[in-house]
Amino acid sequence: MDSGATGNVNEKIYGRIIEEAELLEPELIRIRRDLHRYPELGWMEMRTSSIIASYLKECGCDQVLTGRQVCREESRMGLPSEEELERHYQEAAFREGADQAYLPDTRGGFTGVIGILRCGEGPVVAFRFDIDALPILECEEKSHYPTREGFASRVPGVMHACGHDGHTAVGLGTAKILCGMREQLHGTVKFIFQPAEEGVRGAKSIVDQGHLDGVDYVLGSHMGGDPEQKTAAIGVGNGESMATVKYDVEFHGKGAHAAAAPEDGRNAMLAMATAVLNLHAIPRNSKGDTRVNVGRVTAGSGRNVICDHAHMELEVRGMSEEANAFMDAYAERVIRAAAQMHGCSCKIRLMGAAKNSLNDAALSERLVKVCAEKLCLPVERPEKGGAGGSEDYSYLCERVQRQGGESCYFMNLSACSARIHSERFDFREEALTNGVKAFCGIAVELLR
Amino acid sequence: MDSGATGNVNEKIYGRIIEEAELLEPELIRIRRDLHRYPELGWMEMRTSSIIASYLKECGCDQVLTGRQVCREESRMGLPSEEELERHYQEAAFREGADQAYLPDTRGGFTGVIGILRCGEGPVVAFRFDIDALPILECEEKSHYPTREGFASRVPGVMHACGHDGHTAVGLGTAKILCGMREQLHGTVKFIFQPAEEGVRGAKSIVDQGHLDGVDYVLGSHMGGDPEQKTAAIGVGNGESMATVKYDVEFHGKGAHAAAAPEDGRNAMLAMATAVLNLHAIPRNSKGDTRVNVGRVTAGSGRNVICDHAHMELEVRGMSEEANAFMDAYAERVIRAAAQMHGCSCKIRLMGAAKNSLNDAALSERLVKVCAEKLCLPVERPEKGGAGGSEDYSYLCERVQRQGGESCYFMNLSACSARIHSERFDFREEALTNGVKAFCGIAVELLR
Amino acid sequence: MDSGATGNVNEKIYGRIIEEAELLEPELIRIRRDLHRYPELGWMEMRTSSIIASYLKECGCDQVLTGRQVCREESRMGLPSEEELERHYQEAAFREGADQAYLPDTRGGFTGVIGILRCGEGPVVAFRFDIDALPILECEEKSHYPTREGFASRVPGVMHACGHDGHTAVGLGTAKILCGMREQLHGTVKFIFQPAEEGVRGAKSIVDQGHLDGVDYVLGSHMGGDPEQKTAAIGVGNGESMATVKYDVEFHGKGAHAAAAPEDGRNAMLAMATAVLNLHAIPRNSKGDTRVNVGRVTAGSGRNVICDHAHMELEVRGMSEEANAFMDAYAERVIRAAAQMHGCSCKIRLMGAAKNSLNDAALSERLVKVCAEKLCLPVERPEKGGAGGSEDYSYLCERVQRQGGESCYFMNLSACSARIHSERFDFREEALTNGVKAFCGIAVELLR
Amino acid sequence: MDSGATGNVNEKIYGRIIEEAELLEPELIRIRRDLHRYPELGWMEMRTSSIIASYLKECGCDQVLTGRQVCREESRMGLPSEEELERHYQEAAFREGADQAYLPDTRGGFTGVIGILRCGEGPVVAFRFDIDALPILECEEKSHYPTREGFASRVPGVMHACGHDGHTAVGLGTAKILCGMREQLHGTVKFIFQPAEEGVRGAKSIVDQGHLDGVDYVLGSHMGGDPEQKTAAIGVGNGESMATVKYDVEFHGKGAHAAAAPEDGRNAMLAMATAVLNLHAIPRNSKGDTRVNVGRVTAGSGRNVICDHAHMELEVRGMSEEANAFMDAYAERVIRAAAQMHGCSCKIRLMGAAKNSLNDAALSERLVKVCAEKLCLPVERPEKGGAGGSEDYSYLCERVQRQGGESCYFMNLSACSARIHSERFDFREEALTNGVKAFCGIAVELLR
Repeated sequence: MDSGATGNVNEKIYGRIIEEAELLEPELIRIRRDLHRYPELGWMEMRTSSIIASYLKECGCDQVLTGRQVCREESRMGLPSEEELERHYQEAAFREGADQAYLPDTRGGFTGVIGILRCGEGPVVAFRFDIDALPILECEEKSHYPTREGFASRVPGVMHACGHDGHTAVGLGTAKILCGMREQLHGTVKFIFQPAEEGVRGAKSIVDQGHLDGVDYVLGSHMGGDPEQKTAAIGVGNGESMATVKYDVEFHGKGAHAAAAPEDGRNAMLAMATAVLNLHAIPRNSKGDTRVNVGRVTAGSGRNVICDHAHMELEVRGMSEEANAFMDAYAERVIRAAAQMHGCSCKIRLMGAAKNSLNDAALSERLVKVCAEKLCLPVERPEKGGAGGSEDYSYLCERVQRQGGESCYFMNLSACSARIHSERFDFREEALTNGVKAFCGIAVELLR
Repeated sequence: MDSGATGNVNEKIYGRIIEEAELLEPELIRIRRDLHRYPELGWMEMRTSSIIASYLKECGCDQVLTGRQVCREESRMGLPSEEELERHYQEAAFREGADQAYLPDTRGGFTGVIGILRCGEGPVVAFRFDIDALPILECEEKSHYPTREGFASRVPGVMHACGHDGHTAVGLGTAKILCGMREQLHGTVKFIFQPAEEGVRGAKSIVDQGHLDGVDYVLGSHMGGDPEQKTAAIGVGNGESMATVKYDVEFHGKGAHAAAAPEDGRNAMLAMATAVLNLHAIPRNSKGDTRVNVGRVTAGSGRNVICDHAHMELEVRGMSEEANAFMDAYAERVIRAAAQMHGCSCKIRLMGAAKNSLNDAALSERLVKVCAEKLCLPVERPEKGGAGGSEDYSYLCERVQRQGGESCYFMNLSACSARIHSERFDFREEALTNGVKAFCGIAVELLR
Repeated sequence: MDSGATGNVNEKIYGRIIEEAELLEPELIRIRRDLHRYPELGWMEMRTSSIIASYLKECGCDQVLTGRQVCREESRMGLPSEEELERHYQEAAFREGADQAYLPDTRGGFTGVIGILRCGEGPVVAFRFDIDALPILECEEKSHYPTREGFASRVPGVMHACGHDGHTAVGLGTAKILCGMREQLHGTVKFIFQPAEEGVRGAKSIVDQGHLDGVDYVLGSHMGGDPEQKTAAIGVGNGESMATVKYDVEFHGKGAHAAAAPEDGRNAMLAMATAVLNLHAIPRNSKGDTRVNVGRVTAGSGRNVICDHAHMELEVRGMSEEANAFMDAYAERVIRAAAQMHGCSCKIRLMGAAKNSLNDAALSERLVKVCAEKLCLPVERPEKGGAGGSEDYSYLCERVQRQGGESCYFMNLSACSARIHSERFDFREEALTNGVKAFCGIAVELLR
Repeated sequence: MDSGATGNVNEKIYGRIIEEAELLEPELIRIRRDLHRYPELGWMEMRTSSIIASYLKECGCDQVLTGRQVCREESRMGLPSEEELERHYQEAAFREGADQAYLPDTRGGFTGVIGILRCGEGPVVAFRFDIDALPILECEEKSHYPTREGFASRVPGVMHACGHDGHTAVGLGTAKILCGMREQLHGTVKFIFQPAEEGVRGAKSIVDQGHLDGVDYVLGSHMGGDPEQKTAAIGVGNGESMATVKYDVEFHGKGAHAAAAPEDGRNAMLAMATAVLNLHAIPRNSKGDTRVNVGRVTAGSGRNVICDHAHMELEVRGMSEEANAFMDAYAERVIRAAAQMHGCSCKIRLMGAAKNSLNDAALSERLVKVCAEKLCLPVERPEKGGAGGSEDYSYLCERVQRQGGESCYFMNLSACSARIHSERFDFREEALTNGVKAFCGIAVELLR
């Protein structure tokens, strides 16, 4: 009966995780703040990716995938224009701290990095960390912690307002510690640093590249927590999230003088307005809650010209695959018919997509047990909790579950200063070590 | 130089017209009141047609066309159902006064009569008189002349509220007098008693049957006049009328429980509402004034059932053929796209149509001259005046003008008690003889 | 320790319930078929009410409330017109079988009956049975059981397609048995036969009359079950139902000739169409699933007349009180603004309403235990199950729960031939005795 | 009898006009090309106004009004923001050629100039010349005459694409010649150089300032002509133009996360779409042709945010004052109701307005006669012709006609290279002398 012995060894290894994670805290904070200073939008995380790749190499990952190896080229959704990508590459990516060795790999929007740690026979575990920022101008008031501490964004109008700087730091810390205890692990760990999570654009291209094939367990995490959150904690809910599809639509009509010859036009304004109303009027669904939103429209050139072009940005969501597919198909039908009704043509461009996700109870329970019992981390069990809204982590989840594996998406809770996507968002930096402990702990649990 | 002599002869013949028309007044009033008592809706003018045919025969017309000879079967628009036609045939058509000899010809909606008077070589002149009534409940107050005099409609909900009883009486009186002076005429006169003018449904089928082929002159007339109209008069304007198309539309969707499974439905209500708004939003037209109206809708079966069927009655109009065709094509596109948008099918049924019309100045001037100088009739020259709205007389007009002939549509003015299509509409009976004089006069002018 | 003894006594009493219910089966079937033959719409259950009252009297209820005693006059929603009520009273209510003694009480739409059985000190229990039928033409094919057996509806276009004939029979059977064992009960039983459940119109007026004041337990039940339902059973779920509000809306505009003076109209058609689209576009709600449906519209009089009046029937629903109130307020705002937009006035008439409901777990468990252990009834525990859609039983539920009482709405399952509200709906008659057993059993459980 | 003598004198004076205008041609071309190089948008014609004022002074006008004297401050519609006005003043207005003496008067959008020539007793005649340019990028191909000849716009995105550079040159040439023959004139001539005609924003403020009070005759002119126009000519039609009102609308709602809490938003997108459809569905009008166009919309900030703000630019027009007022009032009602429907507020800002206009036949005939008989100019009489579309000249016309004076708006025809408002528009420069001749000729005709 050596279970006791194993128990002992395990106790020791969890103790080591705790100790190393706490020693690593200053470095985690340094990494996080550096990334916070230089946020980069989706598909333009060029400096970020170069830093990640360099760090993973140094940690001793057996393999570090960059550039075209990471995301399948044609599966990348919502890509900026070539001009934007190149401009960013030339200007922003060469900012201080970028690693010139890895930078060229990212040119043209090939961001994201995957580090692989191979420890012989055993299960394959994937951890996903998202790395992109948001088009938000960071709060400049001293009451905002990053501003007060001098690490607020130096890029006007771009901000890590969703905590992905923290996610990246947690991922790098986790890689460092696990690489250092590789002799105690049996199996493989993939550290997936995913680009373009905002707008749910990046995950599909990683899955399509095959990186989740053969993965047995996948985990992801998100910073969060009300301002009233008393103590930093790991939150494990059901990980439920809505499937979604995001479109950009162009209606092309024909201009004409609105007084002299209105009948000569093909009015893209009427097509757009008809589409907007009817999209919002798509029936509710008994098979799962749904959403639809036309969030942005620009149409027409001048007051006295029949509108010849309208641009529309929308999304639909569904709490079940079926409900989301219903919205998707109905929305396309509405848009095409609205165009046709007014003699216009239309182009529908897919800009992002995510699937439904749900945690596997078994993996969730193991995570809870490790955190609570082995790592002495406070654990909360929110009724729902998890991805919330839509998350393209769901693509990874779906692929792994489909091949019989398990998934868990958990919350890294601390007293955040504002809602995510707010110009005042900030998490508590103690969450960084908590995150590292949790990921390292579950790795040991799964691969010991 | 026998122009003087001809002048004399002509003076005499016009004098005779005046005299005979005035002698005929009691009979005209009797005929008109009889028809007013028993109004019949379009394609169901069965009793009316039998009386007309019998009268024309008696007058001495060379040929009296009835039944299938008059209207081309497949060109009849907006036909009532077979049940309605048969029910009317069985019940109403056999009312007192119907001529049993001619009644059978009308069964199945083959109403309308054409009398032909052949007087040798010469031009062919067609006069058009419309004979149908409206689905209106006649005013029962004593202040309404027909009620006071006891000749108000005996058919609840059906009324001669557009003066077609008068038109018919004028037509019969004209036929009687002209038949009596056939030896002074040189050419042919066609007395066309047209069914189903309301809803502009009947004229096309008469034209399609070929009755206007070879006609050199065509004239029609309408009762009218404000209550302030001082004296009964002939009004000759430009005869302008709008082209129009009338549709009935059925949207077919699929019902479903509105709470339990709204996504299972295909919502014909949304298709209908989208069509209504977008039909009214069809662009205005610089090539001619236009109109559109969805006048009636019935949709759905119950509050908590997704609507599976919607019925819509609409019309479009245009002051030019081009503008009307623009409306027609655009409306069809809107309807089909609205159906498709919500997964419904749709059926569009043509219920009526008319063309633009415009009087020929030459014929108008001859009419004015005859009325004013030969018949001592007061003549008014309204700026526009004529068909007004839409009139399927326009089909006759268009065919005759296309083959090089001339058309004139004039007003038979008297102090009417209310707007046409009002439950209180009534014209002054002195207009009956005026109408007979004008038609006889222009016949002589054209065929002497 | 006399629990054993009580146990014994109880065993006996349950055995007696089983026995009596089974003996009663032919009578239950007879009652049900009689009601099925003569279905009556909401507020017109005059014959039905007279039969119920007579039967309850005969059973020995201490009090039988009828007419104005049952429903609060001004709280009755969706009442037919006075003409319809009177016509039905004169014609239909006097059909064979009606009890002339009680009939006059129902005149003017005062239907519904409450029987009260008083058995001394103890809790007050209310059972609710709904009694109205639907405006559906019953299937005339022999494959439809009621048709084959000769008890299909004899009233064209009216049908018990929701099983309320069965509900009523179960209620009467329950009253008969419980009245017969009154000496073993301690407390009060109210047998509430509610009118106008369809359209959720009747319950509020019973609650407003105070009949649920002081009630400790309330139960209701509904016939149901897929065609594949293997065996008749009692189904106890969570009893969840959606709150709802039903409206009739009248838009009043102004007619005008659509070609001659469209600008003189105030177009109620455009107001209606705008309302329809925008009602269906009311945002979804994160606080509870919602529904909206405009199920019926009639608008306008003629194709060429600007529509002067539109009638619209709609409903909104919400899975939470908050979500339903959101829909209610938004819908009213949409309707009023749509009217105003096109210069129309509007009238909104409340036609029905229900609240959310949810079973009390304690009462549900007691019911399950009694059915399964004492009455040998098969019991199913569907995940949701219960009212489904919306039920105005929710008014009774809410009142009782608000005063600290408990509610349970359960399903009386059997292999039904079609969905409820279908022209082919029929339940299996063995469900009748099952229902009687369940109601009698829970009464004994609560009042022994 | 000195009519002969006067005739002679007149013949001489017309001959002098012809001669001087032709001598002036190179200067007219120089002025026109200078203005064409430096086009300025409405209310920012600062360099332009300074040049006009300086020239008029030099010509010898008795009075030159500039700055706040010209346009009533609070009547200026569609004014750019203060920032834009100041930026233009600082940068663009100081471009080469600007007259520093007059420039300061224009600061803050006080552009426009009026020159007054007083020649004793006699009628008051006003000539109106509009001076602003359009936000259009001028064609850069050599096939475009101004580009080939090197006088294309040097201001990217701003272009004299409506010929106002020519109008201004004609006005200055006319002033120069008439000032030189002041001793032969009897009365007063006002040379009104109006800002901000595009968008019909400037005329009202000139009228409101009182400059048209007491004016007996007013004339204006516009460059025009098909590419096929054979010879440069003066075109005198009926001067008919549509009344119009232009609005900018802001809908203010409230943002919310489109998935997490859609019910918390107040959706300005739905308000906008409802307004667009219903604006285009405003009924047609029997009292005059109408127009409506929502030409530009921008709404919302992000795909997954309920839209909190929508901006809409629209215009309505009417061929009669009544029809235009109907559109104006209906449009405002639609916009306000659409906002209210979705819980939004709205602001409607008047951006421009014009009235109907119609030439006085008497003045038109005098102009035709002078051009044809005295000035040897080719004259065309188009059936309609004149302002076309909408023109705020109509404000001047209406004021003068209201006080009993006469108005004539005529076309200065030549073979234009493209439609007005096209990036390829250009008139033939021979039209410049034609315009000068016509204005000088009618001045002599009216004031001799």
